[in-house]
Amino acid sequence: MPETKIANILERIKQLAQQCFQGAKGSHDWEHTERVLTLAGHIAQKEGADPDIVRLAAVLHDIGRSEEDQANGGLDHAARGAKLARRILEQQGLRAEQVEAVVHCVAAHRFRKGPAPESLEAKVLFDADKLDSLGAVGIGRAFLFAGEVGAKLHNPGVDIEKTEAYTVEDTAYREYMLKLRKIKDRILTAEGRRLAEERHAFMEEFFTRLNQEVDGTL
Amino acid sequence: MPETKIANILERIKQLAQQCFQGAKGSHDWEHTERVLTLAGHIAQKEGADPDIVRLAAVLHDIGRSEEDQANGGLDHAARGAKLARRILEQQGLRAEQVEAVVHCVAAHRFRKGPAPESLEAKVLFDADKLDSLGAVGIGRAFLFAGEVGAKLHNPGVDIEKTEAYTVEDTAYREYMLKLRKIKDRILTAEGRRLAEERHAFMEEFFTRLNQEVDGTL
Repeated sequence: MPETKIANILERIKQLAQQCFQGAKGSHDWEHTERVLTLAGHIAQKEGADPDIVRLAAVLHDIGRSEEDQANGGLDHAARGAKLARRILEQQGLRAEQVEAVVHCVAAHRFRKGPAPESLEAKVLFDADKLDSLGAVGIGRAFLFAGEVGAKLHNPGVDIEKTEAYTVEDTAYREYMLKLRKIKDRILTAEGRRLAEERHAFMEEFFTRLNQEVDGTL
Repeated sequence: MPETKIANILERIKQLAQQCFQGAKGSHDWEHTERVLTLAGHIAQKEGADPDIVRLAAVLHDIGRSEEDQANGGLDHAARGAKLARRILEQQGLRAEQVEAVVHCVAAHRFRKGPAPESLEAKVLFDADKLDSLGAVGIGRAFLFAGEVGAKLHNPGVDIEKTEAYTVEDTAYREYMLKLRKIKDRILTAEGRRLAEERHAFMEEFFTRLNQEVDGTL
């Protein structure tokens, strides 16, 4: 598709996607999508993925999230987002194979649920989405989420098995111990891995410091 | 006062103080007081301050905060805390000059409002309280507070003059630009300054990284 045409379509789809984020919490808002778009574009370029498919998928990847939030977890936002994305892409006149390629990326972007990313473009989106949970951004998002659910600042002795989500024990540190510190080993592309290792190292340094400061040794 | 007697009084006063923190938000809860107690004890020892006065003051310094929160800012928690502290200290049989010394620390612990810290013990408490806003703890608390008030993750182009507290723009970065990056220059003791400079440097590195990650350059 010519450069100007796809740029116009991307712009229209961005506007449609953004409307799905009204009232979204700061830890998972439209700006998360914008950061994923930037990261995914960068990784696509380094990895030789189709930039149009990746950018369309990045813009659409979380449009099912507000429905998931309202359903209190009874709905999977990747599956729902894939359905909504298909409708939008068809309305905008994308070719059938482009629609399928983008829909696969959206359906497969999740951390644990849903199909595994098979195409290079789906792997790029998966990595970009996960990278936004690492580094300074990932640390900030983890504490912001903790504040949103009324959790406390820290629980250095957290027992992951015995603590529950959406309680005062659902701290940034619990999220780090449970999920964030393992993300770098699930990254699928070489450029994603390079970025993930760097961001992981900073996050690890941060939580080591946090424990030392709380102990009074720093 | 003999070591065992003051230890018993401190323990009783801790229990009384902790009761004032029921329902407190994670960014300013009882665990903040516990961290300040650890820091204040460390600084007191390095600076030669009276450890009993400092520890009693640390435990009591924020007991007026829940009333301030309920009054939506119409009450100053340092002044209120000083009154409550006086009552508790007199009930526990502290000598008049000890009561005055602790009450002064509590009354003067605030960042901008109230009397300036005059005694060495008040300076130690002031520094310990401010240090808990710096470093990894300070970063975590800033994002946690942002989550509590429904702010977004980041606003790199924030205009401090044109943004308001308790809105989506009341981000951790706004707090950093408005207050946190200036704290190290207000620290009053040598050991406090040493710790503050180290914690400040890490916080500065964090927010520099955050901007780079959001720009897509890291």
